[in-house]
Amino acid sequence: MSHTTTIIVSDMTCGHCVSAVKEEISAIDNVTGVDVDLASGSVSITSTAPIADESIREAVTEAGYTVR
Amino acid sequence: MSHTTTIIVSDMTCGHCVSAVKEEISAIDNVTGVDVDLASGSVSITSTAPIADESIREAVTEAGYTVR
Repeated sequence: MSHTTTIIVSDMTCGHCVSAVKEEISAIDNVTGVDVDLASGSVSITSTAPIADESIREAVTEAGYTVR
Repeated sequence: MSHTTTIIVSDMTCGHCVSAVKEEISAIDNVTGVDVDLASGSVSITSTAPIADESIREAVTEAGYTVR
């Protein structure tokens, strides 16, 4: 089964922000891809198993940003 | 967070099959939408929380079909 989780991350302003968020989320177990749209703040996470909302929230916080 | 899970269901042949699969999957907690493409067997499930693969597998089995 393929899983996609979509979140909105606040306050990303540049490519560095995008990289930081991608790096932390990519480290979550079973995550296979992270796609970020900087303009909208939309982050689409693909995974081979369901990912707990809390894991994603923690990764975004670790990167220094906030899930809206 | 919005969640989408995509599966392939074998042996759906008509609109009745589609309805049966939709009905069972829609009954899973937190599921907000089920979109079926009969030709490809692709079933896209949207939910407000992550859905366990096993719950989806059981729903499809209950409807009389198989997750490929």
